Amino acid sequence: MRRNTETIRSIARDPATGIVTIIDQTQLPHRFVLVPLTSMAQAAHAIRAMLVRGAPLIGATAAYGVALAMRADPSDGALAGSLDVLGRTRPTAVNLMWAFARMRDALARLSPSARPDAAMALADAIAEEDVALCRAMGAHGVALIDSIARRKAGRVNILTHCNAGALATVDIGTATAPIYAALDKGLDIHVWVDETRPRNQGASLTAFELLSAGVPHTVIPDNTGGHLMRQGLVDLVIVGTDRVAANGDVANKIGTYLKALAARDNGVPFYVALPSPTLDLTLASGDLIPIEERGGEEVSHMSGLTAQGTIETVRVVPDGSPVANFGFDVTPARLVTGLITERGVIAANRTALVAAFGDRESRAA
Amino acid sequence: MRRNTETIRSIARDPATGIVTIIDQTQLPHRFVLVPLTSMAQAAHAIRAMLVRGAPLIGATAAYGVALAMRADPSDGALAGSLDVLGRTRPTAVNLMWAFARMRDALARLSPSARPDAAMALADAIAEEDVALCRAMGAHGVALIDSIARRKAGRVNILTHCNAGALATVDIGTATAPIYAALDKGLDIHVWVDETRPRNQGASLTAFELLSAGVPHTVIPDNTGGHLMRQGLVDLVIVGTDRVAANGDVANKIGTYLKALAARDNGVPFYVALPSPTLDLTLASGDLIPIEERGGEEVSHMSGLTAQGTIETVRVVPDGSPVANFGFDVTPARLVTGLITERGVIAANRTALVAAFGDRESRAA
Repeated sequence: MRRNTETIRSIARDPATGIVTIIDQTQLPHRFVLVPLTSMAQAAHAIRAMLVRGAPLIGATAAYGVALAMRADPSDGALAGSLDVLGRTRPTAVNLMWAFARMRDALARLSPSARPDAAMALADAIAEEDVALCRAMGAHGVALIDSIARRKAGRVNILTHCNAGALATVDIGTATAPIYAALDKGLDIHVWVDETRPRNQGASLTAFELLSAGVPHTVIPDNTGGHLMRQGLVDLVIVGTDRVAANGDVANKIGTYLKALAARDNGVPFYVALPSPTLDLTLASGDLIPIEERGGEEVSHMSGLTAQGTIETVRVVPDGSPVANFGFDVTPARLVTGLITERGVIAANRTALVAAFGDRESRAA
Repeated sequence: MRRNTETIRSIARDPATGIVTIIDQTQLPHRFVLVPLTSMAQAAHAIRAMLVRGAPLIGATAAYGVALAMRADPSDGALAGSLDVLGRTRPTAVNLMWAFARMRDALARLSPSARPDAAMALADAIAEEDVALCRAMGAHGVALIDSIARRKAGRVNILTHCNAGALATVDIGTATAPIYAALDKGLDIHVWVDETRPRNQGASLTAFELLSAGVPHTVIPDNTGGHLMRQGLVDLVIVGTDRVAANGDVANKIGTYLKALAARDNGVPFYVALPSPTLDLTLASGDLIPIEERGGEEVSHMSGLTAQGTIETVRVVPDGSPVANFGFDVTPARLVTGLITERGVIAANRTALVAAFGDRESRAA
């Protein structure tokens, strides 16, 4: 992400010291804290407790987690154990499985002594590839924004849900890649940021990184987007995704489906930024994507900054009222205008997906 | 509302002492505090600061506010002044205008000395009428729940948004009237309660009153309803309304429109509980309903109970990020399955509304 004049990656390995560092996203937007990861257990905790989140960043963190495991013990048992522990941290993220397949395939054929360096180099490569994918998505997606800017007076209003930003990836983001590219191109843009309950990744993370980068934006309750679209105040929607099925159905943060319905009802284009590691051609339909249920305290409690400058957690639901916390929903492909991928903007259907990415079909096996 | 074995009205005048008392809803669900209203200024503050909210309860509180003004000064000037001050407290609530028209028409023709008693008696009557309206809506609406209960196995799942409950009215509620009637009838029901950001009236108020009354319920983030409907976990939606236009368009708490879209997409019946004072036949369409914009701190901050038992307000948006806070949205009549009124369940269109309530058309003039 951009911070003052610097770029700070969401996960980075210092080439000199070899230390892997993440941004502790649970402390954003109130405190900016960098945390070193020195063991596989710390990487697993970082994923499970959502110090890092976002499908691409989870994939990169898991890859570094395997590499850290190999540094401590490069045996076959440790390799299998690390894949097992890290694999159970977040069930919905397909990137994690994909990063694992690459790590396992590459490392299993090496002698234990060769594994530590190879694992770290491969984790670095996975991180660099993510940056390159996001840059390519930005280049393709910015054309959509530019085309709206050419035919309307005034700023282009983009609505996004959750955080598919720099903080969800190694850098730049997926849904935000076209936004940062538009900023660099000098286009007049403004972003409506869904706060994204229950974890508030929009208010906490997307707003934070857009503010840091100087992108005009406004935070809104998740309930607001439909009204804005009815008023003509949204020109396009761009969201990220945790998994796309072969038929173009999109799993993303809970509430995405509602925005897709509103976009369709108001003729607003609805785009999903999809780096190909998030595509799962082995799943015929979005109905087969497992939906993670998370702890109820994410709904019943909220954390924030007090007037005294401390971070406090408060209960917002009556003691005694049950809560439910589904992490994701599935937006049917029929509601998706297009998928912004690293190979161009394509239709959300099997034909287009296989044409663009069929060569990678065996990858998730 | 039901509390233990008692019924406590959201606004009540003690017949013996003449004291008007409200429940301070800003302290719910953590503290149950009754507040006496002894002046028009206190009534205006209670409406403006949302100690009371909900269209019917705002109307009743405004009527008592005029009566309190008359008790202090029954002159023509004080009458006009009280209508002016109270009329500017909440622009979207049509009930307030309707209560005013009745108060003004009745009081203007009386001598000042006759006004204090007449005003209080009329405010009492407006409150009693609201209770009767809600009971009638409950009787009509429970038939919809009963009909679903007869054709499906297991409990009937009802989704509601915001609080159109006992706490939004003098008693029983509008959207909740059929739910309480179903409970009394012994039907197996469960209510999905949208938390309803930014003010959390669902989590704070609806959950609180359902918990108090013993109605099975689950609090969910506003993002969740679409997923639940796709999973077949919602049998019907019942919401309240702040104003219904002559064509059946419904203004209600921001986010209602998104749930109506999801209901339509999944074949789930979407009902709006409409007491006729909330109907505005002078407005041709919902597009003419003014949408209140409220303070940004409702979005940027949240209040709740700390582990230490104090109520604390925390910031949940980065300092420096702008926010927007639209209070309501308009759900087009085409998405509304039916209107639950005190005169039966009717279609959401001009023909049905005029047939049912045309005799009251001149009322809001």
